[in-house]
Amino acid sequence: MSKTAVTGSLIDLQIDPNSALPKYQQIAGHLRGAIEAGRIPAGIKLPSTRIFAEELGVSRNVILQAFDRLIDEGLLSSRIGDGTYVLALVLGKPDLVAVESKTLTASEHYPFRSLSRRGKSLVASATDAFPERPTAFMPDLPDLREFPIKTWLRLLNETSGRLRGEILADTSNAGYEPLRRSIAHHLNISRGMTCTSDQVIITTGSQQSLDLVSRMLFDPGDPIWLEEPGYVGARSIFSANGASLCPIAVDEQGLCIEEALARHPSPRLIFTSSSRHYPLGATLSLRRRSVLIELASRCGAWIVEDDYDHEFRYVGHTPTSIHGLDGGQRTIHLGTFSKILLPSFRLGYVVVPPDLAEPFAKARAVVDRHASLIEQMVLSEFMHRGLLVAHIRRMRNLYRARQVRLIGGLRDIFDNGLRLSATDTGMHVIIPLDQSADDQAIAKKAMEHGVVLRPLSPYYAGRQKRQGLLLGFSAYNLEEIEQGLTRLSRLKMTIDPMLAI
Amino acid sequence: MSKTAVTGSLIDLQIDPNSALPKYQQIAGHLRGAIEAGRIPAGIKLPSTRIFAEELGVSRNVILQAFDRLIDEGLLSSRIGDGTYVLALVLGKPDLVAVESKTLTASEHYPFRSLSRRGKSLVASATDAFPERPTAFMPDLPDLREFPIKTWLRLLNETSGRLRGEILADTSNAGYEPLRRSIAHHLNISRGMTCTSDQVIITTGSQQSLDLVSRMLFDPGDPIWLEEPGYVGARSIFSANGASLCPIAVDEQGLCIEEALARHPSPRLIFTSSSRHYPLGATLSLRRRSVLIELASRCGAWIVEDDYDHEFRYVGHTPTSIHGLDGGQRTIHLGTFSKILLPSFRLGYVVVPPDLAEPFAKARAVVDRHASLIEQMVLSEFMHRGLLVAHIRRMRNLYRARQVRLIGGLRDIFDNGLRLSATDTGMHVIIPLDQSADDQAIAKKAMEHGVVLRPLSPYYAGRQKRQGLLLGFSAYNLEEIEQGLTRLSRLKMTIDPMLAI
Repeated sequence: MSKTAVTGSLIDLQIDPNSALPKYQQIAGHLRGAIEAGRIPAGIKLPSTRIFAEELGVSRNVILQAFDRLIDEGLLSSRIGDGTYVLALVLGKPDLVAVESKTLTASEHYPFRSLSRRGKSLVASATDAFPERPTAFMPDLPDLREFPIKTWLRLLNETSGRLRGEILADTSNAGYEPLRRSIAHHLNISRGMTCTSDQVIITTGSQQSLDLVSRMLFDPGDPIWLEEPGYVGARSIFSANGASLCPIAVDEQGLCIEEALARHPSPRLIFTSSSRHYPLGATLSLRRRSVLIELASRCGAWIVEDDYDHEFRYVGHTPTSIHGLDGGQRTIHLGTFSKILLPSFRLGYVVVPPDLAEPFAKARAVVDRHASLIEQMVLSEFMHRGLLVAHIRRMRNLYRARQVRLIGGLRDIFDNGLRLSATDTGMHVIIPLDQSADDQAIAKKAMEHGVVLRPLSPYYAGRQKRQGLLLGFSAYNLEEIEQGLTRLSRLKMTIDPMLAI
Repeated sequence: MSKTAVTGSLIDLQIDPNSALPKYQQIAGHLRGAIEAGRIPAGIKLPSTRIFAEELGVSRNVILQAFDRLIDEGLLSSRIGDGTYVLALVLGKPDLVAVESKTLTASEHYPFRSLSRRGKSLVASATDAFPERPTAFMPDLPDLREFPIKTWLRLLNETSGRLRGEILADTSNAGYEPLRRSIAHHLNISRGMTCTSDQVIITTGSQQSLDLVSRMLFDPGDPIWLEEPGYVGARSIFSANGASLCPIAVDEQGLCIEEALARHPSPRLIFTSSSRHYPLGATLSLRRRSVLIELASRCGAWIVEDDYDHEFRYVGHTPTSIHGLDGGQRTIHLGTFSKILLPSFRLGYVVVPPDLAEPFAKARAVVDRHASLIEQMVLSEFMHRGLLVAHIRRMRNLYRARQVRLIGGLRDIFDNGLRLSATDTGMHVIIPLDQSADDQAIAKKAMEHGVVLRPLSPYYAGRQKRQGLLLGFSAYNLEEIEQGLTRLSRLKMTIDPMLAI
């Protein structure tokens, strides 16, 4: 049976010139089959008869006849001046779309069918998100409404005109060179570093940075120091990559290094959210930074410094980054723009020691080519014009005012007994609870009252968990903070007896 | 020694209130140190004295005094009405910035210092790009000038107003739900598939899709069938993830399955660019698709179908996708928007069997959270309004005209002896050369004549390589193709005797 091919059609449909069936009937038959099989779902607008006719190389009349046939059959509906739509299947025919969707999502039938061993471990390392809504006081969100979208669109408009094949060709695996220069410059000024743009590798964010670091710097089974409690995303990706995790306690000075050394003497890699421990808020002291560098050099370990949140400091001073202090010899420095611009944009960076720049850039290209070039170009321009620093300064003032309002409101509700922590920096404060409290139960109850209080205990991997509540303030204006406080005040009787003394 | 903290400063600088030195001298000293150490490079504009003063909590006069001191020392320069700039270091002081940059990029000093075993293998799997410029006839590029940037910016403008915390919170690890629906719908109509949006996982592009597939579906040492010649990016990432690669020959019908089975009987995973083999252009026949599905089911292998380039078909018809034919049971279907929209945008997708949807979504979040949400929202809107299909149709017509012009021009230059291949589909054609030719030497010579001819032989992993030249046409308008042909015609004497007969 010879077939006339439909040249380059976007519609998966063939007409047989030798068939006894007229063309319109063939077309109607194909469409009927596709609709009944659910390949063309109900509600979809079909291409116009003109385009259909061009695609199939037939006259427009043939398409009209085919459509009419299907309209008669109740499968299509034509709206004058609008177009032809696929109707829902009715009367005796099963609703295939719905049935199919139900069958297909029934993942319990073949759980983990033939995944690789590492695939299973990857999936097992995933942690469920807290079931919360983005209302006060859900933490970790910047205020999306404050993002300077008009400026960004203007820069995007200007920049897109400059996007040429040359730029694509010239952009190295490590990222867009002017952006890497801007980042190096920003870090050298604000974080006391002395890196060159060569050392900066652009990623899609901290999570990809951590994945790259994991694959490049340790092998399955290697011991990794990880803060306890700590950033769940880091724990997941290290664990997915086969790390042997050593939980390290954190106090007011940050990572407890002496204690760690006694229990886990030879780490391959040390992870620290040094500027502001996540979630407790401690800043790694200058003295401990020096000890850490000395230690890393002695035992040949890598330091991975997640410089999370250093932009939002309200009290005190952030010490020079570890990367700056050790001259970038054994330190991998991570940063992200998600928290200062928009979580929706996916741009972050890794600053590596000079001799690792080329291997990291190559590896980055193997696993994911490069980050969105146009976003890199716009961000580069944004930084070059000083807009990033201005934006950070503006947000810091805004967040500080919000934090002040939140703390004031909490003191009004809970009287003088309230001891808050994590107030020097960042985007949330913590209400520490007595160890007899159940922070998850309180969070659940709060949710029922329309207010988000995130429990502290899930940040601990081990059995010894501290109880507490995280309250984010960055994403909410003063009015929303007031509303949140009003809702929270209804839980006073629940929380008051549980406050840590 | 007690210190007054600099509250939330973006400038890494501290003032000691107990110091005998006046504040302006302390500030000047800090800045001098930073400039001399290269942390603040020459040419940089400093923040205004007003902002500096606010940041440090001192009077503006103190900052003016500090700046004046450094201007006197020749470290800063003040431009009236503009601001204060850092001058290049001169006279007796080493140019630290330059020296540092030289030292730091000297990666030969510690090659591969302490990389992990898998990190070394990751780096070793990277392949060097062809040293070409984006002029005719460099392949693999869409025409960036034809991207509907005005429409895209308009949609971005509209969409960004809708970006709220709710959307971030509601977007699953697998991606933005309306985009996943649009993609499922597009594939069901155009590729004969019957997938639901649940099965669609948004990635940053094919390379990340392949990395995810590798980690999820095979373990180090597992045998993987790979087309020979084939897509270098696939070979890199499979190899980086420890695959035992089995090169499989390709003929006019695509993958030579019988031959492969005889030599490598039990693959764990089979990779095929089925719609259009890259780079040879063959389409996997319908019969072989069935054989492959039967085989995969029998030996428990996964099929990874990279549906690269199926949009640009000029002759004949692309068979229904393997995923469509086997009901998506053992097939992972990959697609990307890089080649139809802009390589700069980083959005692609994986369609997985229903029971793998949840594990893949979880794993995707562990390794890289999610793709840029705002780009997902805009693309979703672009597809929903039928603009993607319209764009593909327009580009296909444009590319077809360009291909016709290129082929016509080549026939004019090389007379009737010329046999071209890969002409049915895609973004390049191939001039097959005699086995005695050296395609890399010809490509090099062509580069000297200002025309890009990409050699075919580097696409082969094994020792048996076919010689040929790839000529891309998609990124060049008719005038540029003419220019390329003129340059190419000067190489007639070099290429003519080498044409395959």
